[in-house]
Amino acid sequence: MASSTPPYKPPPMKSLTIENITDNVHAINGGCENARLRFLFERLAVHLHDFARETRLSTEEWAAAIKFLTETGQICSDTRQEFILLSDIFGLSLLVDSIDHPKPPGSTDGTVLGPFHVAEAEHMNLGTHISQDTEGEPLLVVCSVKDSVGRPLAGTSVDVWETDSRGFYDVQRADRDGFDGRAVLKTDEEGIFHFKAIVPVPYPIPDDGPVGKLLKVLKRHPYRPGHMHFKFERAGYDPLITALYLRGDPYETSDAVFGVKDSLIVDLYKVSQFEGCAEQYGVSGDTKLLKYDFVLVTETETHGLRDKNAMKAADSLGMDLQLEDGKLVRK
Amino acid sequence: MASSTPPYKPPPMKSLTIENITDNVHAINGGCENARLRFLFERLAVHLHDFARETRLSTEEWAAAIKFLTETGQICSDTRQEFILLSDIFGLSLLVDSIDHPKPPGSTDGTVLGPFHVAEAEHMNLGTHISQDTEGEPLLVVCSVKDSVGRPLAGTSVDVWETDSRGFYDVQRADRDGFDGRAVLKTDEEGIFHFKAIVPVPYPIPDDGPVGKLLKVLKRHPYRPGHMHFKFERAGYDPLITALYLRGDPYETSDAVFGVKDSLIVDLYKVSQFEGCAEQYGVSGDTKLLKYDFVLVTETETHGLRDKNAMKAADSLGMDLQLEDGKLVRK
Repeated sequence: MASSTPPYKPPPMKSLTIENITDNVHAINGGCENARLRFLFERLAVHLHDFARETRLSTEEWAAAIKFLTETGQICSDTRQEFILLSDIFGLSLLVDSIDHPKPPGSTDGTVLGPFHVAEAEHMNLGTHISQDTEGEPLLVVCSVKDSVGRPLAGTSVDVWETDSRGFYDVQRADRDGFDGRAVLKTDEEGIFHFKAIVPVPYPIPDDGPVGKLLKVLKRHPYRPGHMHFKFERAGYDPLITALYLRGDPYETSDAVFGVKDSLIVDLYKVSQFEGCAEQYGVSGDTKLLKYDFVLVTETETHGLRDKNAMKAADSLGMDLQLEDGKLVRK
Repeated sequence: MASSTPPYKPPPMKSLTIENITDNVHAINGGCENARLRFLFERLAVHLHDFARETRLSTEEWAAAIKFLTETGQICSDTRQEFILLSDIFGLSLLVDSIDHPKPPGSTDGTVLGPFHVAEAEHMNLGTHISQDTEGEPLLVVCSVKDSVGRPLAGTSVDVWETDSRGFYDVQRADRDGFDGRAVLKTDEEGIFHFKAIVPVPYPIPDDGPVGKLLKVLKRHPYRPGHMHFKFERAGYDPLITALYLRGDPYETSDAVFGVKDSLIVDLYKVSQFEGCAEQYGVSGDTKLLKYDFVLVTETETHGLRDKNAMKAADSLGMDLQLEDGKLVRK
């Protein structure tokens, strides 16, 4: 005899109160057929309601939040993502990256993607100068990409992006002519990639919109320490989104978007400190040099670690959860 | 000797982790000079981060949320407020109204304002027909407004609004010519207000945008039971935002925005059931009649009840809080 699940029927509800509203929202959302979404919306309702109940949120405050979120959405465009900025300044972006891309010891830490990555940046040959900015201080970047046992990862896709010397990404400039300060490269046989660029400078995140206003209310500055972004992709390996920060930057310990990690802070060298380097890369000896060895983690190792961390978190919460396709859901 | 507070200096931070990010966000936001905002942003960071930590939110899910919020903001206009809809379908609007406008026994319950209230609706005389919709079923509305001991509240401002017979508010119609189905009235010497309108019909909340898509994913219908909105304002009294719902409506127990309360469900009468009513109000005897006695609460009583509830909630959370201008803040 064929069995069939009767269609989900939420219980009747009326006379909702401060106390019973959350369970009623769960009940009505319980018809969602995707177990992961059901769990996400359950937790979302709990936290949204608990926030209002704990703070005794007023109608006026609620209305201010509605207005703020609306303005945040409305300032977004093809080249501006204010909601990512909002997530960044609340540390949520850093947190989500840390959860989704756990790093075993010895591998390179990840950090925030930020709102200025461009999916369709130009593929360039190794050695190319990625910046058209003649005002910037010249920088040679020579890095390696290896696996966790030190084997070079040849042919890895490396996405790099940085601001110009005034602290603006190409996509922020109204007068821009094509991409600038960004490229997609491939590592060579020895897992090396190198390119010419400019020394990163500290810059404010866009602060002329809702997020900037919020930072002012919070008496926070909008600055990020000088850094260069990197995004690595390679079949079989967990994508690595990271950035390198310059030691001694005035904003090293107060990054507006919580992106700095000790392991990602670097000292710049001079090319002349390395014999033969100037000739090999065709730059003058007093050019600044950024060197770093990136270590990628296999997908298998990352997934294993992520699953382990998720079940540990679920156990510590005492919630009856299980993993389904690597995601926590109710049993 | 004059004392002075040294400027707030957040602790240096770098190497942020899943575990320490929340405290670091608190520390950086700790410079905000408004104690209430400091508390709100503290709890916001806690719930935002706990949500991500408990669900082990993935980068992909985070990105979907960013996209959803952006689209929600972008569909908003002078006549469409999608973020209010979002708040409504998660029960947050009902919850915030219940917290901010607690009702002592014997007073009229509040409910959701919804996104279709218009601040600048036309002032009309008692008895006016507020609907231009000739397809709607005629309705006479005769209600009283009293205080908690039954004294009529003459001169109370009453804002009323309803959809047309097809379920659309005036502001939703592209072809509209001025306001329709809404008015601001004033109660007479006996605290009575009356007007002509049409019998409310159930209708779907706008479901052609992000919120509509979300409802589909959650397998929820977008319907609200037929209702008429009321908003009362009077100096010295807590504003009352409420609505009356028609008993027996197919969506009476599954309102998409959680607005129905038992005490706000009404049976319609016929004018002929009340002697002299047809003549008094100049309508035919078979016209439907909506009668209700609204009871407003003084500001003093509402504030007292709100403060009491807030301190009770704070105590039950074991957080060290106090009231400042009627709002919870850290001691």
